[in-house]
Amino acid sequence: MTARRVAYAGERRLRIDTAEPTPPSPGEVRVDVAYTGICGTDLHILHGEMDSRVDPPCVIGHEMSGRIAQVGAGVRDWRPGDHVTVMPLVPCRACPACRAGHAHLCHRLVFLGIDAAGSLQNSWTVPASALVRLPADLALEHAALVEPTAVAAHDVRRAELRPGEQAVVVGGGPIGLLIAIVARRSGADVLLVEPDPYRRSVAEGLGLTCTDPGGGGLAEFVERWTGGAGAAAAFEVSGTAAGVTAAVDALAARGRMVQVAIHPVAREISLHRFFWRELTLLGARLYDRADFETAVGLIAEGEIPARTLISRIEPLDRAAQAFAALESRADVMKVLVDCRTNGKADSR
Amino acid sequence: MTARRVAYAGERRLRIDTAEPTPPSPGEVRVDVAYTGICGTDLHILHGEMDSRVDPPCVIGHEMSGRIAQVGAGVRDWRPGDHVTVMPLVPCRACPACRAGHAHLCHRLVFLGIDAAGSLQNSWTVPASALVRLPADLALEHAALVEPTAVAAHDVRRAELRPGEQAVVVGGGPIGLLIAIVARRSGADVLLVEPDPYRRSVAEGLGLTCTDPGGGGLAEFVERWTGGAGAAAAFEVSGTAAGVTAAVDALAARGRMVQVAIHPVAREISLHRFFWRELTLLGARLYDRADFETAVGLIAEGEIPARTLISRIEPLDRAAQAFAALESRADVMKVLVDCRTNGKADSR
Repeated sequence: MTARRVAYAGERRLRIDTAEPTPPSPGEVRVDVAYTGICGTDLHILHGEMDSRVDPPCVIGHEMSGRIAQVGAGVRDWRPGDHVTVMPLVPCRACPACRAGHAHLCHRLVFLGIDAAGSLQNSWTVPASALVRLPADLALEHAALVEPTAVAAHDVRRAELRPGEQAVVVGGGPIGLLIAIVARRSGADVLLVEPDPYRRSVAEGLGLTCTDPGGGGLAEFVERWTGGAGAAAAFEVSGTAAGVTAAVDALAARGRMVQVAIHPVAREISLHRFFWRELTLLGARLYDRADFETAVGLIAEGEIPARTLISRIEPLDRAAQAFAALESRADVMKVLVDCRTNGKADSR
Repeated sequence: MTARRVAYAGERRLRIDTAEPTPPSPGEVRVDVAYTGICGTDLHILHGEMDSRVDPPCVIGHEMSGRIAQVGAGVRDWRPGDHVTVMPLVPCRACPACRAGHAHLCHRLVFLGIDAAGSLQNSWTVPASALVRLPADLALEHAALVEPTAVAAHDVRRAELRPGEQAVVVGGGPIGLLIAIVARRSGADVLLVEPDPYRRSVAEGLGLTCTDPGGGGLAEFVERWTGGAGAAAAFEVSGTAAGVTAAVDALAARGRMVQVAIHPVAREISLHRFFWRELTLLGARLYDRADFETAVGLIAEGEIPARTLISRIEPLDRAAQAFAALESRADVMKVLVDCRTNGKADSR
């Protein structure tokens, strides 16, 4: 038996090849991957922006769903056929962050799909400790959204949103949209700030209040929307300097800003505003098991509009086209790769 | 009866003159001021940096102690002779911040000594609601430190320091030193970062661990001091760009940085570090009544080394020399002005 896989080969190239599946060592399982979603991080890897960390050729991908194919020695609680997703973190369990109970911030964290092989392959062997159970009746296609939904659940939890509070989400890509949906479900009144008309139309179709920051009147809009108070929370999901300023300026006294997007360069921030209104800035990274379980629940209960979010599904051999579709940002939210051995294209 | 007073007259000038004391209106009291400490904000006013807010001639000063001289109509609970300090905040009680329970962040806050007359005068008339009781046996000289100690109490409370945690204080002026002392008393292990040898010697004399950031090895020092973990909390009290970076870099996973110093210009901040370690930045401004009461208690219990902190006391007519001494930063921590009618110089 052989398996197909998609590797980042360096220099903006993907390589699709065939290899023997890795048999599970003790404590590991081999998973037949069903679907893998492509994430902004995967694009960054393809663009060479993470070459200092990624060692090509490296199989990438980490938003997935699948079925257990084979169980290694000593693995309890899991059987072939079980539907699973993977929380792609392998912490060291020994560094100060792990010992302090923040394993997702492990100083030597191995992220599957970046620092080690990921899920863009038919068959993926991972530590059993990374498995998260999926209900057998949950569509595996939808379950590929568990990982990004866990990101959103983590970010909303970090904001400690209370019912009735007003929250601004700056940036309406897949993560921004998921944050808006999770925040709304936790009882918040949400405003999504997004310049792209397609993304706004998707969000509005989901009943979210949206505004275009392009006109320049965002501060006044937020001022009116919050009756002069400012918002209790803001999520910076745009990754832009202007997005940071917009999030800071949107906040009420004691407002909390959750920094979700990755900013590779330092940003100029008005510490005077942080002082004046006693704002809080909360860095947010990844998730933990509780967030994954929340995400599985949200998807299983139909709270996440999976059909709307999944714009396109490509078979594994067309992974390059899947990446190109996401890169184009042309009327696309989430793109999945069908990693099943018999995977077929299913564009919509 | 006439009273002497010190006003900021504009253009870097102080004017000392004589006026009739203001009789207390209903709800007000007139206080015979004993001592007024000079604060960095008073220096900023003198240097014209707050001219957009201050309307000269304006009596400045807001760190004070005194005795009630006269009580206006309708004032209960207070009698002439009571020893008091003043929390110099007059909130509107109607804006969104006040309604949310954050009166110290009032959108229309009147700060006595900036937006209205302050305490650098023999006789000061204030709303009774601003009074804070002092124990009769607490030296009024020491009680002039209640306001800056309340700042420190507020900042330490904002950090939610737990016993045994490690905290870095960046900046060893009077506020930095008070934060270090209050943090230590709450059970934290404190490191004070300060380039000035005199300030370090004062802090070391109080048993604080100090380091000079000048050598460039601060990050390695903190790394060693925390066994590779980083500190649980950092207080940025320096007001410098380098201080901001030092505080961010010092923090452990989920570390909290309290922004104490005022930064009039935006600062470049590594949001990547905030993301990577899930750091929290907390703006801190002023205090509330609970902080003032904590501060009175700390001073009354002898926890604040008032004798060490008060470098010099000048009579009111030598207020200019008091400001000059503080400005020179020559071996000086706190400078008080003796505002008593019979006040005499008491340099030490």
